[in-house]
Amino acid sequence: MIKLAIDAMGGDYAPKEQVEGAMLAIKNIPDIELTLYGEPAKIEPYLTDSTRISVVPSEGVINMGEKDPIRAIRSNRKSSMAMALSSVRNKENEGVVSSGATQALIAGAHILVGRMKSMKRTAIAPLIPNIKGTSTILLDAGGNLEIKPEYMVQQAYFASIYAKEILAIEKPLVGLINIGSEEGKGRVLDQEVFKLFKENPNLHFYGNVEPKEVLNPPCNILISDGFTANIVMKTIEGTAKGVGAILKEELKKGVLGKLGLLFSIRNLKRFKKRLAPEEIGGAMIYGLNGVVIKAQGSSKAVGFYNGIRQAANVVRQDVIKKVHSVIESDNTDEKP
Amino acid sequence: MIKLAIDAMGGDYAPKEQVEGAMLAIKNIPDIELTLYGEPAKIEPYLTDSTRISVVPSEGVINMGEKDPIRAIRSNRKSSMAMALSSVRNKENEGVVSSGATQALIAGAHILVGRMKSMKRTAIAPLIPNIKGTSTILLDAGGNLEIKPEYMVQQAYFASIYAKEILAIEKPLVGLINIGSEEGKGRVLDQEVFKLFKENPNLHFYGNVEPKEVLNPPCNILISDGFTANIVMKTIEGTAKGVGAILKEELKKGVLGKLGLLFSIRNLKRFKKRLAPEEIGGAMIYGLNGVVIKAQGSSKAVGFYNGIRQAANVVRQDVIKKVHSVIESDNTDEKP
Repeated sequence: MIKLAIDAMGGDYAPKEQVEGAMLAIKNIPDIELTLYGEPAKIEPYLTDSTRISVVPSEGVINMGEKDPIRAIRSNRKSSMAMALSSVRNKENEGVVSSGATQALIAGAHILVGRMKSMKRTAIAPLIPNIKGTSTILLDAGGNLEIKPEYMVQQAYFASIYAKEILAIEKPLVGLINIGSEEGKGRVLDQEVFKLFKENPNLHFYGNVEPKEVLNPPCNILISDGFTANIVMKTIEGTAKGVGAILKEELKKGVLGKLGLLFSIRNLKRFKKRLAPEEIGGAMIYGLNGVVIKAQGSSKAVGFYNGIRQAANVVRQDVIKKVHSVIESDNTDEKP
Repeated sequence: MIKLAIDAMGGDYAPKEQVEGAMLAIKNIPDIELTLYGEPAKIEPYLTDSTRISVVPSEGVINMGEKDPIRAIRSNRKSSMAMALSSVRNKENEGVVSSGATQALIAGAHILVGRMKSMKRTAIAPLIPNIKGTSTILLDAGGNLEIKPEYMVQQAYFASIYAKEILAIEKPLVGLINIGSEEGKGRVLDQEVFKLFKENPNLHFYGNVEPKEVLNPPCNILISDGFTANIVMKTIEGTAKGVGAILKEELKKGVLGKLGLLFSIRNLKRFKKRLAPEEIGGAMIYGLNGVVIKAQGSSKAVGFYNGIRQAANVVRQDVIKKVHSVIESDNTDEKP
C-alpha cells in the first residue's frame, strides 16, 4: 500500500474539493491509503466512503497570502499542512498532496520533511502544457533564486528521472532556458551550466532554448534558476490570461461574431481545458526525503485527484531513490 | 524638417515593405524628410513619389542570423544599416528606422551613433500590447544582461519621459518585474533597484509587478535587467504563438465548430491584430546620441510606417535632450 497524507484544508475551495478529490483517488487507485489532515466536522460532509481513508484532526490553516512562510509553519505546527508534512518525516506516510500556499509548503517541506542528503538544493517543478498535448517540466519555478551551476545539474537529473519514470519518456531531453540558441549566450551562470550539461553523460542535453518556443519546445524539460523559471511560469500565466481576455472581448463583437461564438462554445471549452494547469497535474518539490506535490490553489476535485495520482506514481516508481543513486554514482566518479 | 535615415534593405520583406512604408510616411507626416539607404535598382520599383525622399546607394546587407554582430557591422560599413546609422553621427539625419537584425543594430548603434554621455548603459525597449488596448513599455529587452542598479534608474527615466512625451501618459507608473509583489522579493539586484526606485523623486514607482499581470499591468512601464526582460518578451511571444496554435486546432473541430469559425473569422482577425507587435510600433534603443528604432523583422508597410512615425515623434518631442536634462540634474543633486 502507498500511504499518502492529504492536506484537506489548503486551497481556495478546501476542504470540499480536496476531500472529493481524495474520494475519487480511493475509487480509482487500488493501492493507496489516504490520511486526511483537517477539521473533522468540515470534512465529514464530503466523506462518502471510509475505505482506505482516515481523518486526523488538525487546528488552523496556513493562509494563502502568508508573508513569512517559515514563521507561519513554525507557529502552526498543528495546521493541516504542517501535520501532513510531519507525517512523512515520521514515516507514517510516503508523500503529501497540498493545494496550500506554495511558499509555506516549500518552507514547511524543508523544515518538516527535510532535504535528501545527496541533493544540495530543492527545486519546484510544475508541468506546463504544450501544443502537442503533452506536458513539459519547468524548473526551478521558485525554490532558489541564486544557485550554483552544479546544483542545477542535480536538479536536471531529478527532472530527467521524473520524466522517464512518470511521463514515460525514454530519453528525456533537457533544454536550458536562454535568450539565444547558440552556445555562449546568456549570463555567466547560463554559460557555465551549458558546459556542465553538455559534458555530462547522465543527461540528454538539447542545448539552449529560447522561450519563444515555450509552448512548443524541442525538449521535455526546461530548466533555469529559481528566479528566471518563476518569471517564465508567471509570464505564461499572464499571457494566456491576457490573450484569453482579448479573445473573449473580440469574439463577442457583432451579430455574426455572437452567432459564431454560439457554435464554437464546445470548442472554446476544450481550448480552455488544454491550457488549464490542473488538468496535467501539480508541481513536485524535488530534493526532499519524501514526495511533496503542490496542487493548484484553485484545484477542483479532478485537479486535486490528479495531484494524488501523481504522488502515488512517484512513490510507486521509487523516483527519489533512483535520483539518489545517480547523484551518488556521480560523486563516486568525481573522487575515484 | 525632421530628417530620418531609412535602412531600406533590412527585414524579411525588404526592400518592398520598407519603401512602401516610407511612401506612406511621406504622405501622412508633412514635417519629415527621408533618406533611403539601399540598392537603387531594387528600391526604385516601389518609389512612387520623390517628394522629401532621396536614395543613397549602399552595398550589402547585414544578415538576420549574424553570429558576430560587432564584426558584421565593422566589416560592412557600406551596408544599408551601417550607412543609415553613420548618417546620424554625421548629423545628416536625426534618427534611423531599421527592420534589420536586432543584435547588429544594437552593436552598430553603439559603434556608429554612439552613447549619450550622461547615460551609462543603453537599453532596448519594445512596446507590448495590453488588454486595455494601449501599450506597455518593456525594458531592457536584451541590451545589458548584467547591470548595476543605478543604471536601471537612468533607463527608468528614459522610459518615463518616453511614456510622457510619446504615449501621452501624464504620470507614467514604473513597475519592477519580480517574482512577488511585496518589497524585499527577488534577487539582490531586484531588492536594490526597488530601494533606488522607491526613494527617487523623479520616478512614479508602482512597486514590484509579477508577470502574471504582464498583459494587464497596473503600470505603464515594466522594467528588469536585459536577461530577464528579454526572457519575458520571448515568453509572451511563445505563449501567444502556442495559445494561438491550440485555439486554431480546437476551433476547427466538428461541424458546429467549423460553422462557428466561419462566422467568427472577422473577430479572430481583429483578435490577432491586437496581439501583433508591429501594430503598436517598434522597439527604441535608449541611451544613444540619436533616435534608433528597431521595427519588427517581419514588418509589412504599415508596421514599418508606424516605426517611422514613432521615430519622428521622438525627434519632434526632443526626448533625448529631456532625458539628458533629468540625468544631469540628478548628478548635480548628488554633488552640490
